[in-house]
Amino acid sequence: MLKIGETKPFFPCDNLGVGENGRLTFAGRDTVALSQKYGTPLYLIDEMRVRKNCRTYLQAFNKNFPSGSLPLYASKANSFKQLYRIMQEEGMGIDVVSAGEIYTAKAAGFPMENAFFHGNNKTDEDVNFAMETGVGYFVADNEEEVLCIQAAAEKKNIRQKVLLRLTPGIDTHTYEAVNTGKVDSKFGNAIATGQAEKITLLTLSQKNIELCGFHCHIGSQVFTEDVFECAAAIMLRFMAEMKAKHGIQAKILNLGGGYGVPYVQADGRIDIPAKIAGLAAQMRNECAALGMEMPAVCMEPGRSIVADAGLTLYTVGAVKSIPGYKNYVSVDGGMADNPRYALYRSRYTCLIANKINEKTDFTASLVGRCCESGDIIQENVSFPANVCRGDIAAVCTTGAYNYAMSSNYNRLPRPATVMLTENGDYVAVKRESFEDLTKLDI
Amino acid sequence: MLKIGETKPFFPCDNLGVGENGRLTFAGRDTVALSQKYGTPLYLIDEMRVRKNCRTYLQAFNKNFPSGSLPLYASKANSFKQLYRIMQEEGMGIDVVSAGEIYTAKAAGFPMENAFFHGNNKTDEDVNFAMETGVGYFVADNEEEVLCIQAAAEKKNIRQKVLLRLTPGIDTHTYEAVNTGKVDSKFGNAIATGQAEKITLLTLSQKNIELCGFHCHIGSQVFTEDVFECAAAIMLRFMAEMKAKHGIQAKILNLGGGYGVPYVQADGRIDIPAKIAGLAAQMRNECAALGMEMPAVCMEPGRSIVADAGLTLYTVGAVKSIPGYKNYVSVDGGMADNPRYALYRSRYTCLIANKINEKTDFTASLVGRCCESGDIIQENVSFPANVCRGDIAAVCTTGAYNYAMSSNYNRLPRPATVMLTENGDYVAVKRESFEDLTKLDI
Repeated sequence: MLKIGETKPFFPCDNLGVGENGRLTFAGRDTVALSQKYGTPLYLIDEMRVRKNCRTYLQAFNKNFPSGSLPLYASKANSFKQLYRIMQEEGMGIDVVSAGEIYTAKAAGFPMENAFFHGNNKTDEDVNFAMETGVGYFVADNEEEVLCIQAAAEKKNIRQKVLLRLTPGIDTHTYEAVNTGKVDSKFGNAIATGQAEKITLLTLSQKNIELCGFHCHIGSQVFTEDVFECAAAIMLRFMAEMKAKHGIQAKILNLGGGYGVPYVQADGRIDIPAKIAGLAAQMRNECAALGMEMPAVCMEPGRSIVADAGLTLYTVGAVKSIPGYKNYVSVDGGMADNPRYALYRSRYTCLIANKINEKTDFTASLVGRCCESGDIIQENVSFPANVCRGDIAAVCTTGAYNYAMSSNYNRLPRPATVMLTENGDYVAVKRESFEDLTKLDI
Repeated sequence: MLKIGETKPFFPCDNLGVGENGRLTFAGRDTVALSQKYGTPLYLIDEMRVRKNCRTYLQAFNKNFPSGSLPLYASKANSFKQLYRIMQEEGMGIDVVSAGEIYTAKAAGFPMENAFFHGNNKTDEDVNFAMETGVGYFVADNEEEVLCIQAAAEKKNIRQKVLLRLTPGIDTHTYEAVNTGKVDSKFGNAIATGQAEKITLLTLSQKNIELCGFHCHIGSQVFTEDVFECAAAIMLRFMAEMKAKHGIQAKILNLGGGYGVPYVQADGRIDIPAKIAGLAAQMRNECAALGMEMPAVCMEPGRSIVADAGLTLYTVGAVKSIPGYKNYVSVDGGMADNPRYALYRSRYTCLIANKINEKTDFTASLVGRCCESGDIIQENVSFPANVCRGDIAAVCTTGAYNYAMSSNYNRLPRPATVMLTENGDYVAVKRESFEDLTKLDI
């Protein structure tokens, strides 16, 4: 959030800057020019940043974890074909959560043996489709699913690699809706209740399933110091116990999730390589103490791969001051393309791209164009006093869970996604047309 | 919500029932058979109920309000071509909020002279598109928009009919996000601050605009006794004042919104004809006291036209009990097709369609299949103890703000919408395919 009277704006990521013309740049490009070229609302993705974020994880993994370890892009954060091509080029694995994501990754040519299929409720059709498509690993959530995978694998006469999703019982103190590792969860099998051991034994008894390891997910947007380390300790102890009691040699420990991303000035910044090095050191110590080999490690960063690679551009419309009450700056998008404030009161850094060096002393709500009072992008934004119709508003750090969660609420077409590269820009997802909106209507 | 041990289920609307086979019926049809015919998740719309709800408003309007009065279907509640055809057949007007809704209505052949174009932030393109399409009335939200309409109308050499959106300053005590009539709102012009009079004078001075009346919207899902009456009184006083001070003869008073709809047993039930008769009587008295003619009246029911005409069917997947914690029943849809619990903690009546007469003594959360803990359809639902994979779950009263707000989150295709008629059933919106999901991807 800009401070009143502060002329130097806060940028949540170093791919944001100011051009000589006083306009916001993103990935080194003039955002106002991009808004003119492609229209608004518009999702921009800094492709170089996506690749850089992948490499941060990949290099830290190579340096610190045993062979076979792999960061998996959690594609629910943002899923379209071009992103899977980039993940393939960078050598990332992927975490997919539906037949729709599997279809998209496969259509992009992604090598599906590096895909991990998640979800608390895979349908029979999903399981069959994933197996047909050659998905490498199923992360089985529950006993019914184990039996469903066994039946499908038996029919195909294959041995399906499976990880089991466990709940280590950790409260990450993140917002409840993105906090999935505590005992009371729709996901996984609690270690604390004995259900984790029970599903492990059930899985071992299935002849068409190869139990490769265990998975947990203690929540996304993790900033807390010790959450991954704490989860790893619990999971390693469980793995040692399973080895001692049942002779299970699990090769993979998938710790789920990724590190937090700063959205606003108050957010912390995380040194991901240092964190991963620390986590690995602690895990090696734990393994030594438990007398077990260090397993291959997976993590599932989604937000921290794409969030700060994203920026949304809008055109400002009505600006409204209600004396004695509040001010409103409206844009030509809103909760249809970014429902995160409506859902979670998520915070964002918001800027006027064509007036980036001006004094920001006009506090207003940045609101959308939907016919709903809750259609707010951000409250208490500091704008230039001369913000007006036709200005370009930029909302930062929108690469994750914006396009992925977008709707056609108010029958608004979804924005295009434009990729920015070192040399240029190109459309990765075309803008929806009115014809697209009605194509399934009789 | 079903009470524990109660075998007779609560139905929020009389189009729900139980067949001889113990299965839930909707619009007289076997819902389990419909789930088999069309697959799940599935939106059902009881077409007869939609028409009945329209007629309730139309008949009450004809009986109580002056000629020219018209209920307008607020199509943001649910917008697809077939619904506009039904509105045309029933003689309803429509409230549209975007070029996308206008495009859809026009494509369905709706007579656009009966359309009222809303929105707090119409873009220049929207204004031009609406004028080209022959939209009857613009409900102008702010001064910039008045000037924008004037410019577009001048260019086309027409006189555009306009209503002005005012905020009467009423707090409806409904949930904040759907409460739009208080002074502090992104919508409209406050009477209390003098801004309503100011925009009225600005509009009068535009030679290509015909000022036809005023609009307010005190929120949707209105149950409170006197909210419409209270808004009408404030608006009529303002109209009388404008007449006295500036000689304005406004012909239309559009009161926005509609009456509340029961979702669960605790919700009240509203006698809409009686309410409208009471409102009309009060307005006639007010007008007599103010020495003014009774204006034509519009209202904008959306939810109360389509909500109870809707039912969503899901297939149950994983059923999970976490001893000492909580139980979960998962279905093959969730916040992607119904984000209202995630957004507003909205309440719904949930039933197991194929076990409708069984004792419901298993309390669980009804959750979706998205990889997100917040993907909940309803908490504390009483299910039959033998609820299991393959059962059909029915969520009632989903005709409004479900399909309209649906997304492809987790890359889930959106369900089909099937209309139920007296003689049969037909697909009004086809189910999205995987190909549809990727058709705009490069």
